[in-house]
Amino acid sequence: MSFTVAQLLSQETTIQDVEVKGWVRTFRANRFIALNDGSTINNIQCVVDFENTEESILKRITTGAAVQIKGQLVESQGKGQSLEIQVSSIEILGDSDPDEYPIQPKKHTFEFLRENAHLRTRTNTFSAVMRVKSTLSFAIHNYFTKNGFYNMHTPIITASDAEGAGETFRVTALDPKNLPLTEDGEVDYKEDFFGKETNLTVSGQLEAETYAMALGKVYTFGPTFRAENSNTSRHLAEFWMIEPEVAFMDLAGNMDLAEDFLKSVIRYVLEHNKEDLEFLDKRLADEEKRLPQAERSPMALIDKLKFVVDNNFKRVSYTEAIDILRNSKPNKKKKFKYLIEEWGADLQSEHERFLVEKHFKCPVILFDYPANIKAFYMRLNEDGKTVRAMDVLFPGIGEMVGGSQREERLDVLKEKMAALDIPEEELWWYLDLRKYGTAVHSGFGLGFERLVMFATGMGNIKDVIPYPRTPQNAEF
Amino acid sequence: MSFTVAQLLSQETTIQDVEVKGWVRTFRANRFIALNDGSTINNIQCVVDFENTEESILKRITTGAAVQIKGQLVESQGKGQSLEIQVSSIEILGDSDPDEYPIQPKKHTFEFLRENAHLRTRTNTFSAVMRVKSTLSFAIHNYFTKNGFYNMHTPIITASDAEGAGETFRVTALDPKNLPLTEDGEVDYKEDFFGKETNLTVSGQLEAETYAMALGKVYTFGPTFRAENSNTSRHLAEFWMIEPEVAFMDLAGNMDLAEDFLKSVIRYVLEHNKEDLEFLDKRLADEEKRLPQAERSPMALIDKLKFVVDNNFKRVSYTEAIDILRNSKPNKKKKFKYLIEEWGADLQSEHERFLVEKHFKCPVILFDYPANIKAFYMRLNEDGKTVRAMDVLFPGIGEMVGGSQREERLDVLKEKMAALDIPEEELWWYLDLRKYGTAVHSGFGLGFERLVMFATGMGNIKDVIPYPRTPQNAEF
Repeated sequence: MSFTVAQLLSQETTIQDVEVKGWVRTFRANRFIALNDGSTINNIQCVVDFENTEESILKRITTGAAVQIKGQLVESQGKGQSLEIQVSSIEILGDSDPDEYPIQPKKHTFEFLRENAHLRTRTNTFSAVMRVKSTLSFAIHNYFTKNGFYNMHTPIITASDAEGAGETFRVTALDPKNLPLTEDGEVDYKEDFFGKETNLTVSGQLEAETYAMALGKVYTFGPTFRAENSNTSRHLAEFWMIEPEVAFMDLAGNMDLAEDFLKSVIRYVLEHNKEDLEFLDKRLADEEKRLPQAERSPMALIDKLKFVVDNNFKRVSYTEAIDILRNSKPNKKKKFKYLIEEWGADLQSEHERFLVEKHFKCPVILFDYPANIKAFYMRLNEDGKTVRAMDVLFPGIGEMVGGSQREERLDVLKEKMAALDIPEEELWWYLDLRKYGTAVHSGFGLGFERLVMFATGMGNIKDVIPYPRTPQNAEF
Repeated sequence: MSFTVAQLLSQETTIQDVEVKGWVRTFRANRFIALNDGSTINNIQCVVDFENTEESILKRITTGAAVQIKGQLVESQGKGQSLEIQVSSIEILGDSDPDEYPIQPKKHTFEFLRENAHLRTRTNTFSAVMRVKSTLSFAIHNYFTKNGFYNMHTPIITASDAEGAGETFRVTALDPKNLPLTEDGEVDYKEDFFGKETNLTVSGQLEAETYAMALGKVYTFGPTFRAENSNTSRHLAEFWMIEPEVAFMDLAGNMDLAEDFLKSVIRYVLEHNKEDLEFLDKRLADEEKRLPQAERSPMALIDKLKFVVDNNFKRVSYTEAIDILRNSKPNKKKKFKYLIEEWGADLQSEHERFLVEKHFKCPVILFDYPANIKAFYMRLNEDGKTVRAMDVLFPGIGEMVGGSQREERLDVLKEKMAALDIPEEELWWYLDLRKYGTAVHSGFGLGFERLVMFATGMGNIKDVIPYPRTPQNAEF
């Protein structure tokens, strides 16, 4: 009978006659194959009877080779595993020339593995990351479904660029060498596929609002894009966002939802990916040993995940946070790169991390931000200068979630759009939501790869997505 | 205590003091509000004590208005519902001017509703469609997760256009009015964001193969794009695809997977969206009453879904299917638009539907197609002229799934690519999979909106996606 490695390793008793297919991770002493098939971080040891195996076959059992093994599942005599296979027959399905195969059983740099991104998931680190990522994805769909949300697909190609969340990519089917022009010499987008200028979406929020105002609770989980020329360890030109949107929910409800959601999905991976997380926990610890003490994380990976699950998120107004930061030691001693001097300052990652890691020592939700540093659609407070925005701040990473209660009053929204030169014609449908049965509603956005970085302890966002898109790079 | 309409209608006993928020669907006799909040196709009847309610409030209870209602949940005296709310107080949250609100309580054409796609989910038909769609989405993630597949995100922006699945959209950050040119006068894409020419993906399959050859079983669920200028009821420029890919699985296993997958997700909606499907079943029957007998569907919606779940899919080789079609009545009587004359002909929807609906009377999987009508990556059979391709054919809709065993032999794949002028440099990473530990592997693709059309009985693909992208249309 055919099994995956995960199935074999979870057997409680030994079995006669098993069959398994996978890739050789290592082959030592002409006898011990460590076999992996991606179903678990663990390998199964396959013990070859080398005296009765042809030399020509033994030579082809190399790292990366695909093999089919038949044998008996028995209790292991060796250390580090409880079960192993006594091989009765081995077939080489696909060879792997050890002089050419890039993924050798040694430590490769992440830079090297990025250049071989099509093979890097054959390593322990990347397979663990991608399994955790897959579990997180399911945990998200599961959470929303169990809580009465409907998944919806907001458009990827869009003609509305009103959110102003950053630079966009243009999408076109025009021949660039033969662009149709208007009488004024402008590109005539009427001739393009969609009859107008179109770009890749930066957010599905505005469209999600239209569905929340009909179905009550909805969420999106899809790709979004920024054409920002910043090549950092935290930015991608193409990344996935989760955006729930809920009718009749105010900012307090939004904070409850974000906290419950984050705790729930992190608890889910803690429960479902124990072995992957233990591996990643150890990997991070090993990596940090090489760093000076001051640069090491204050918490190990699994401790950090439990820290989020076990602590109530502290809710603090922006105004209170500014007071705390202004009077803080690093501010007074000028240790912050950006000193906090007055109300209205935009917070940087160093401030967010100070609040979470040093001051409150728990995840923090900041709310009621100054209106002029936030987006046009956020609900203006009665003070006339703050909006019902919120950011959820996590240790190590800073902002994990950004959200708000949305402006539901037609007149206030129109005023705000006019002040920011956003034409009403472009968002007639968004304004319609405030004309016909408007109501309080709220939502938030979460960058999925940010969450995966947090859950896996990976330090570079390029290492938590199969094929990263960044300036000067669209390989694979 | 606050409830959704779905929660209220599922109560087994009456409750004092309930609160509910939603939108007025109808208000009749100055007394009976049909209230809906999107949580179910059903409305809850709210009975207003109009003698003790201010006239100014009563006037504002109009179709589309958002209201908060407090009252007692009691057994209903009226027909058609078991529970209703005796209203003690009503608050108008958002008005809806009956002279302006486009969604009146009457039958609107789907064309009209497409122009008001931001509001159409407030109708019974579209809310039912979108709830069924959301359930299908979850059923898909649930099926793959329970069966040991890992979800992965393949890139949306890509520089490889090798699959040749159709016209692509270009993605660029260059200023179209000031394009950088090479010495030869070509557009210099080295100056573009990614340093090369990029487009929107037509499929994630090739990248999914790289992950299957490391993690074993993977699937994608994401948007794909075609810049084809065809404005039909079955084509979108932007649609979502599901693409599983499995190592060590041959074509027979692929057929098993496709059949089990389709039955499982359709069974899931039959179990979870009974009321929505009953509504959509009746809607389709009503619509078809207006058609001449010959144009009506042979089966009602729910019967058709059960037909798929309850029948074994018949597996038929292309060669056998051609024989059947060549000798069929519609072919002999020249009723087919495209007559089947010889082996090698590409099958049209009329042929696929004949096989499913008339000849076999069950879902059909055709396999082993002529190599020259299928893609380069499909596994060549020993006959040298057919490939291990398969299409799953459904009643009413024709092709639902297309898939294949992939060519795992490096030399054969290279020959095929050379014959089709696909440069090896573009797909070096794809060829690497055949160099290092290659193995039999297979997968398929499923257009999600096609599946939603099938499950909901909707006849136009523009009506199963929130904001359709089609030639000359990128509204909202």
